[in-house]
Amino acid sequence: MEILRTIADMKAWSQRVRSTGRSLGLVPTMGALHEGHLSLVQRSLAGSDLTVVSIFVNPKQFGPGEDLGTYPANWEADRDLLEPLGVDAVFLPTRDLMYPKGFQTTVTVEGITNHLCGKSRPGFFQGVTTVVLKLFHIVQPHTAYFGEKDRQQLHVIRRMVEDLNLDVEIVGCPIVRDADGLAKSSRNQYLSAGQRDTALSLNRALEMARERIEAGEADAALLRREIESVLAPYADARIDYVSVCDADTFEELEVIHDKALVALAVFVGKARLIDNCLIERVPCKEPC
Amino acid sequence: MEILRTIADMKAWSQRVRSTGRSLGLVPTMGALHEGHLSLVQRSLAGSDLTVVSIFVNPKQFGPGEDLGTYPANWEADRDLLEPLGVDAVFLPTRDLMYPKGFQTTVTVEGITNHLCGKSRPGFFQGVTTVVLKLFHIVQPHTAYFGEKDRQQLHVIRRMVEDLNLDVEIVGCPIVRDADGLAKSSRNQYLSAGQRDTALSLNRALEMARERIEAGEADAALLRREIESVLAPYADARIDYVSVCDADTFEELEVIHDKALVALAVFVGKARLIDNCLIERVPCKEPC
Repeated sequence: MEILRTIADMKAWSQRVRSTGRSLGLVPTMGALHEGHLSLVQRSLAGSDLTVVSIFVNPKQFGPGEDLGTYPANWEADRDLLEPLGVDAVFLPTRDLMYPKGFQTTVTVEGITNHLCGKSRPGFFQGVTTVVLKLFHIVQPHTAYFGEKDRQQLHVIRRMVEDLNLDVEIVGCPIVRDADGLAKSSRNQYLSAGQRDTALSLNRALEMARERIEAGEADAALLRREIESVLAPYADARIDYVSVCDADTFEELEVIHDKALVALAVFVGKARLIDNCLIERVPCKEPC
Repeated sequence: MEILRTIADMKAWSQRVRSTGRSLGLVPTMGALHEGHLSLVQRSLAGSDLTVVSIFVNPKQFGPGEDLGTYPANWEADRDLLEPLGVDAVFLPTRDLMYPKGFQTTVTVEGITNHLCGKSRPGFFQGVTTVVLKLFHIVQPHTAYFGEKDRQQLHVIRRMVEDLNLDVEIVGCPIVRDADGLAKSSRNQYLSAGQRDTALSLNRALEMARERIEAGEADAALLRREIESVLAPYADARIDYVSVCDADTFEELEVIHDKALVALAVFVGKARLIDNCLIERVPCKEPC
């Protein structure tokens, strides 16, 4: 497994690979790898001839007061997870290399970023799109893999790729959960045992919403209130948003027609946790 | 000369060329070609194995009330200028292909765009960087050529290329002038004979500033006033900006040390004309 620490080395490695006609998959991460990340890596290993994992805690996607300073990092543990899988290269740049003095450029996707995490975390998606575009230029992947836990991010990146005429295929991969239903997240490390119990309520709320929608409930505002009721008993949970929205535009729905994205962001202690579920209504058997 | 009207055709042509190891130069234009553009084309023909000229009147770099609707366009004349030079391909997309329904992405360079044309024309440089990045992704040139008449644009594009880790060499080419000193511009077509006389005052003001700076004048505010005095007698000239600024940051200077960029934007009738000159002070022979 090659460890590439400079942009020039990464570009040279990538050009060498591409010139041999082999396909290149990229899994962009911020490290603190868990099984969610590893599922993306496995998907890339299966679908691309060679796989690069980038590890870069991107300061531009953290707002003031967020957890940039404490974001978990453990390069040795990450390396020990990636190497046995057969990852071909890890790109591990420093902040100074990615954002040298005088850096002034930002990539913005409008519209879909006005909702959910974009609304809660101003500048977050700009940070994401800017760093991902840089990574695409540096690594030159044919395919890049992103998790559906950050479903809005996945859509924002697809939008950027299409708008900017990039030749990178974007593959979204399903959320990976612990046995008890908690979505894997690097930020789960922040949770105490009690907070972890609270955190399980996110998935329970989503499952409740799935049952209700599949059973025919179409009133999105009612569902948002019901989701809030699932979370309400937990004193250590503070809702950032509860959304029942259009799965393409991320605009809040009033009425659920064929499908809805149900998405949550909840602070549990100092961890801001997100989770989501794309729910399709079971078609009526009778005309309705 | 290949005429490529779709993004897919342009990409395919470009990939074919690059796969043979030949170098590709791009001259991005908005058409209405004049000798300024042709000097960029000549430079590309001399420096690259193959040359693509793009012609696209980019709506995103025009503000409300600007001249998007009347911007000169004459494809047949442009073609007749390019073909005899030996240009290999012209990329001629429509607005709907470049900005399809749902387009939401913008590239922004901060800092240097807060001055001069960036200050006068909000959104202008975002329009430029967005379309140029798209063109770079579509055409995949090794080298791209831009005129120094739009010197701030040249710097903004260099900044974007560096910040986003693009592998495109940016070449700036000198301003081309008519025999009487007027900088070549597609917008010169808007000028009546009388307005053309007025327009000559831009270059005269720059030449005055050059003489004054080379002779040792270091007071930038004084020079700005003197430039304004050159333009003042012309009733049909309306100054947008007169700048004596740092040639890298575009911040206004108080004192000129070794060099200055002198830049003007002046409305003459409905034409907004720009011109500039990078002036270096003649070093003192005595310690000063």
